[in-house]
Amino acid sequence: MEIEVVENVMQYNKEEAYRNRQLIKKSGVLMINILSAPGAGKTSLILATIKAFKSSFKIGVIEGDISSTHDAEKIKDLIDDVVQINTGGTCHLNASMVARALEKIDISGLDLLFVENVGNLICPVGFDLGEDYRIILSSVSEGDDKPVKYPKAFIRTDLVLLNKMDLISFSDFKYDFFEKRIRDINPEVEIFKISCKTKEGFNRWLQWVEEKIS
Amino acid sequence: MEIEVVENVMQYNKEEAYRNRQLIKKSGVLMINILSAPGAGKTSLILATIKAFKSSFKIGVIEGDISSTHDAEKIKDLIDDVVQINTGGTCHLNASMVARALEKIDISGLDLLFVENVGNLICPVGFDLGEDYRIILSSVSEGDDKPVKYPKAFIRTDLVLLNKMDLISFSDFKYDFFEKRIRDINPEVEIFKISCKTKEGFNRWLQWVEEKIS
Repeated sequence: MEIEVVENVMQYNKEEAYRNRQLIKKSGVLMINILSAPGAGKTSLILATIKAFKSSFKIGVIEGDISSTHDAEKIKDLIDDVVQINTGGTCHLNASMVARALEKIDISGLDLLFVENVGNLICPVGFDLGEDYRIILSSVSEGDDKPVKYPKAFIRTDLVLLNKMDLISFSDFKYDFFEKRIRDINPEVEIFKISCKTKEGFNRWLQWVEEKIS
Repeated sequence: MEIEVVENVMQYNKEEAYRNRQLIKKSGVLMINILSAPGAGKTSLILATIKAFKSSFKIGVIEGDISSTHDAEKIKDLIDDVVQINTGGTCHLNASMVARALEKIDISGLDLLFVENVGNLICPVGFDLGEDYRIILSSVSEGDDKPVKYPKAFIRTDLVLLNKMDLISFSDFKYDFFEKRIRDINPEVEIFKISCKTKEGFNRWLQWVEEKIS
């Protein structure tokens, strides 16, 4: 009985994700779902990307949090199309939450839509939101063993961003170990080293986004 | 129907936690459940504490991870009483997993037992493991807004440790903001600033543990 309930939830999510995907395809907007641990820098990544693309692309953001509008407020200072999802305790976004958020944005006017998932390296992994691309943002200060500890997050991703490269000389982070453990489970994925603070490596990320938009 | 299933799970956890608590009380061991985001430094805290107490207390560790024995191996270099729980995907430990782990350690010979929960600021919060104390380990590099974003973790804790103080001068972390947002939701809780790397503030933590043991 319990298994049946779980399967229904996942099946329902799959159907909702399919509908979201059809909708964003029709509107011609690129939707990117960003996963990370708490404090890896999802909001900083979004803010810096909005600033860099200010004159070239129209960007919207769906902000996922358990509670508060703390991050959404920061983004609202830069753009209008921000919708907050407060999950009220749920540890991940699902496709149906995103479907409701999509109703509140005029996506036909957007080039790019970021979905900032709840900060969690486990639960969001299983939930397709209907995005075009899913990326994972890891950070130097979290340590180089995250691909070992949270493998599914690094398997089910289209891109790995390693943020906070500005802290690497103050840490024991071994990049070769990090990369090797990702290659063990996801041999082909691209890994970009960036710093949202110093903008180190940021052009490569912007170029990746630009290629996906066009 | 779904709600009923969830309630049964929580009720069952409560009963198992009660049994764990009785067992550790009988054995006279102090059990501390450590919660944090991925990469905040739970394993570093445990390793440094074991080293500091090497000649005074006998310590055991229950290691919680989704998969791998990466952290447990590091601890096994220092002490014998280490048990790994691999949750196989589950995003938190529960009391029944800990009950099974407790069967594999001779707790009657221990003074202190750390339970390193799965790296996650959301899901582990609702699950009492039968511990004497629950602590949350936050870190400077995660940013000062974690109490705003993950309030329940900071409400349901007996102590807040703020790790990675050695990185504070390279970050935008505002300690006053961090503390104020904790005080808003948990006015009385103690907050210790520490660095597991430089051992800044570490004595205060060791003293706290020592007081609880005796």
